[in-house]
Amino acid sequence: MNYQPNPEDVRFVLHAVLDATPQLRALAPFADIDDDLQIQVLDEAAKFVTEVVAPVNRAGDEIGCRLIEGEVITPPGFREAYAGFQQGGWPALSAATEDGGQGLPGVLEAIVFEWLSGANHGLTMAPGLLHGAYECLKHHATDALKQRYLSKIATGEWLATMCLTEAHAGSDLGQVRTRAEPQIDGSYRVSGAKIFISGGEHDLTPNIVHLVLCRLPDAPAGPKGLSLVLVPKVLPDGRRNTVQCDRIEEKMGLHGSSTCSMRFDEAEGWLVGEPNRGLAAMFVMMNSARLHCALQGIGLLDAAWQKADAYATERRQMRAPVQTNGAAPASRGAESADLIIEHPAMRRILDTQRAWIDGARAIGYRTAIQLDVAKHAADGKTRDRAQRWCALVTPVLKAACTQQAFSGASECLQVFGGHGYVREWGIEQVVRDSRVTMIYEGTNEIQAIDLLVRKVLVDGGTGMSAVLIEMRDQLEASRETDADVQRRLAQLRYLTTTLAMAAHIDPVLPYEVADDYLRVVMIVMLAWAWARIDVAAAAANVESSRWSQPSAAFRRWVLPEFEMRLGIVKRACDVVIAAHAERTTAQTTA
Amino acid sequence: MNYQPNPEDVRFVLHAVLDATPQLRALAPFADIDDDLQIQVLDEAAKFVTEVVAPVNRAGDEIGCRLIEGEVITPPGFREAYAGFQQGGWPALSAATEDGGQGLPGVLEAIVFEWLSGANHGLTMAPGLLHGAYECLKHHATDALKQRYLSKIATGEWLATMCLTEAHAGSDLGQVRTRAEPQIDGSYRVSGAKIFISGGEHDLTPNIVHLVLCRLPDAPAGPKGLSLVLVPKVLPDGRRNTVQCDRIEEKMGLHGSSTCSMRFDEAEGWLVGEPNRGLAAMFVMMNSARLHCALQGIGLLDAAWQKADAYATERRQMRAPVQTNGAAPASRGAESADLIIEHPAMRRILDTQRAWIDGARAIGYRTAIQLDVAKHAADGKTRDRAQRWCALVTPVLKAACTQQAFSGASECLQVFGGHGYVREWGIEQVVRDSRVTMIYEGTNEIQAIDLLVRKVLVDGGTGMSAVLIEMRDQLEASRETDADVQRRLAQLRYLTTTLAMAAHIDPVLPYEVADDYLRVVMIVMLAWAWARIDVAAAAANVESSRWSQPSAAFRRWVLPEFEMRLGIVKRACDVVIAAHAERTTAQTTA
Repeated sequence: MNYQPNPEDVRFVLHAVLDATPQLRALAPFADIDDDLQIQVLDEAAKFVTEVVAPVNRAGDEIGCRLIEGEVITPPGFREAYAGFQQGGWPALSAATEDGGQGLPGVLEAIVFEWLSGANHGLTMAPGLLHGAYECLKHHATDALKQRYLSKIATGEWLATMCLTEAHAGSDLGQVRTRAEPQIDGSYRVSGAKIFISGGEHDLTPNIVHLVLCRLPDAPAGPKGLSLVLVPKVLPDGRRNTVQCDRIEEKMGLHGSSTCSMRFDEAEGWLVGEPNRGLAAMFVMMNSARLHCALQGIGLLDAAWQKADAYATERRQMRAPVQTNGAAPASRGAESADLIIEHPAMRRILDTQRAWIDGARAIGYRTAIQLDVAKHAADGKTRDRAQRWCALVTPVLKAACTQQAFSGASECLQVFGGHGYVREWGIEQVVRDSRVTMIYEGTNEIQAIDLLVRKVLVDGGTGMSAVLIEMRDQLEASRETDADVQRRLAQLRYLTTTLAMAAHIDPVLPYEVADDYLRVVMIVMLAWAWARIDVAAAAANVESSRWSQPSAAFRRWVLPEFEMRLGIVKRACDVVIAAHAERTTAQTTA
Repeated sequence: MNYQPNPEDVRFVLHAVLDATPQLRALAPFADIDDDLQIQVLDEAAKFVTEVVAPVNRAGDEIGCRLIEGEVITPPGFREAYAGFQQGGWPALSAATEDGGQGLPGVLEAIVFEWLSGANHGLTMAPGLLHGAYECLKHHATDALKQRYLSKIATGEWLATMCLTEAHAGSDLGQVRTRAEPQIDGSYRVSGAKIFISGGEHDLTPNIVHLVLCRLPDAPAGPKGLSLVLVPKVLPDGRRNTVQCDRIEEKMGLHGSSTCSMRFDEAEGWLVGEPNRGLAAMFVMMNSARLHCALQGIGLLDAAWQKADAYATERRQMRAPVQTNGAAPASRGAESADLIIEHPAMRRILDTQRAWIDGARAIGYRTAIQLDVAKHAADGKTRDRAQRWCALVTPVLKAACTQQAFSGASECLQVFGGHGYVREWGIEQVVRDSRVTMIYEGTNEIQAIDLLVRKVLVDGGTGMSAVLIEMRDQLEASRETDADVQRRLAQLRYLTTTLAMAAHIDPVLPYEVADDYLRVVMIVMLAWAWARIDVAAAAANVESSRWSQPSAAFRRWVLPEFEMRLGIVKRACDVVIAAHAERTTAQTTA
């Protein structure tokens, strides 16, 4: 079966759980938005994703992108699907109307990209960087450059790439060597080689706009000597630029997206932003790109869940255990075996993954709304608070959702037994495709360090503490579940303080426990999300097992990781603090 | 880099930690065995695996097996490698000398297969079932059949398959429909279709011996109506039998092994064992096959570890954090980046996987020795005790080691960043190949149910308790680490009793927590193994960081799962017991 978006589920999280509409209407550009408009957009998107994008996913994996004499041929059906995507106005969903966009909130765009990723990760990579490139040009390019490229990118008429990585430097952008020589006419000539460039070459659009991280002559060494240059595949006068795809990678998965080695031979380009300020120009879209990556994870996990759920409710295998009162599973008929879903181990897998998908959606969509708030709120304090949320929560979501996409998809594969390991049902493709999300947009280990070292400890935990208090205040201590979450939020605040103290003594410690700290944050956020989902489900009086089953699975199978990780971090801190106390005592008495 | 066995590491576990030699010499067939002989065999095996088996692993993945007009062509180099394997006498390592074997202990064969799997999982599948088929025929076949097939199989001159699964019945063998009609001459005509048959067809040996699970006319329904029939590809008179490979599966990995759909059209064969006792004939090799599967997991994880370790100690990426005293990593030179291994998150991944490999080896090799004891000990009580160990520990090892192979290989992939997701370094192949080990030989969920429902609870936990006491008695309470493990062993015994009580009230409960229970057992066994490794390393005075680093990693990052899983099981029991007490009280007062 192909992936199918479920707009009803998403609307429940967006409106019943998060109450998104009033928050969006408080922002000037979205003052007129209402539930109906959002429902209409999402229903249309769901239709498009189901009918056009999902059906070509298998060809993307099995045939994949091919490099033939320097040209990349995308898999059968991809050109048509992308044309439909572009003509439907989907790339421009949250771009400003004056740039040819639809002017809708970013949260809607984020949801549509979650669905696109679930349906066809490979194809979704193509427009995946469009919005980032759009924001980057909008904020940093000259008017002349904007005139030429901004609306082409906003509308997806031309696709864009980010050319960062070089063979000798993966996550370490300070090592970039590609050079850009200024010319008399104000343009630059770019020379160098880049690797791992998603969509560096393809046949989906007549032009490709490369944003290339490089060094001007005499630039300082390291990351502060990097500039950003726009290098189009086709020059304004119609000439082909001297940029070439030399190779596409053979990958574990994601065969529908070309991962290119690009060579620039004195290619013509124009500076974006100021010299040596290339990273700043690029990082304008960092939180949004990472959030999209987290939502890719959610989309892929949902795709895996849908496949496993369909299989488990359709196929029979062995006898399921019988209840205490002798009652057989409700679905037992004349067949000699029970439905796979009746086996407790399989039910557990499905409910647990559902708990991750629904809980992570609530946090992800809230973060997308906060990105809209950070951008559009009239009040500086409101913008700052939203920005703080995004800065702290985005790396958590990126790492945790992508890890769950891979490990959860693997769990879903297990529901199929041997049939999961063969291509037939498409589940193994999800496992292979999803693996890359743990690596790109900053590896998950880098997310954890970004969170703990660069975001939490940099102010001694004050910002984090404020976010946790914000979460606490949205719960009701009179409800048992809420009170439990509040207690955990307090434990995490205390842990953060302890960690700040220990990190002061041993600066290596945070690097050792960053992954555990990130997991603690994610689990407590999921607990917070599920407490709110429970309340919304009770209020909406929806069919109870839809939300109560994953809610119970969350508390039973996911939540216990909180204590485990908390304990790991705490013990590590205790060791450091105790050793320091001993040294201090020894010095005092000496 | 290719996988390379490390005989020194293995000998340390086998001799210094487990003191294998006296245990083996106590068994009649191995009375003459000494350390030197074992060392010689292992050194030879390591050489063969390194020089012949490992180099063709990549071709196995990239070219794979191909089905051309009903014949399976194995990947380039596989025929030659298998011929070397067969001629070197490796298939017959633990077969009896009278059958053409080497008569060596099974533990040595198990180790060699661990190495083979690490070097080339695909090729290793081919002889993977030989020993099982050998034992099956040796114990159940008629003399005439033995005469014709036993030594051919023992020596690997002909390969063997197990034909169990059918399209409508995966793990549920009771559903098998393949029929066998008795003929006047005492032979049978087998008709039916089997799927997922590893090595059902190939070009490695001139004949293939299929052991086919099927039903005789008027056999009772379900698993008690199954018989085992030997169906050779080539009949004794040289005619080709009517058994045909219709299709080979497109799989996530393991492309070097053909996974065949087999069709039997009145194929000639002979009964093995008694009518309707086919499962018993097959299950003779169950523990040994499952143990081999666990060791495949260890071998694959070691292969992943070796790749990641080599990469991390050779490549540089970004700056590692600096110690409290300002000391930079020892390896820091003129380069602008530090070695990947100097980054704490990467060191943690490597040490943690090493902790799994070494600890699991100690338990795995001990179990292999116990299999030898169960088979050869003169004293019935000794045999029973060894058999009890194997019955209880084997499913734990199978599930935990194969799961760790997949998740740990994925962790190792992360060390490579983007380079791990592309084919170049071979690490993603390990992730793909290893995934199937969680499914075959009984899915990991079935292992957990086998452990808890069929092995532990069946006698109210008595057998399990005896195994835990056996482990406790091999530790010294005066050592701090040992005392900690003893405390955990006691906790697990108490948990088992509680679970037996709760399962009595709610028979579904064990199916819900079987996975957690299995993990608790595995973690405590690893703790036991590491306590013993620590002692052996101290006594042997070996270079300390080789064993102390993974030992510390085990305690820091792996061991905390013990409390988490214990808590999950305990809470589930508490709920059931409390509800029961409430009901009972209500009834009493009513």
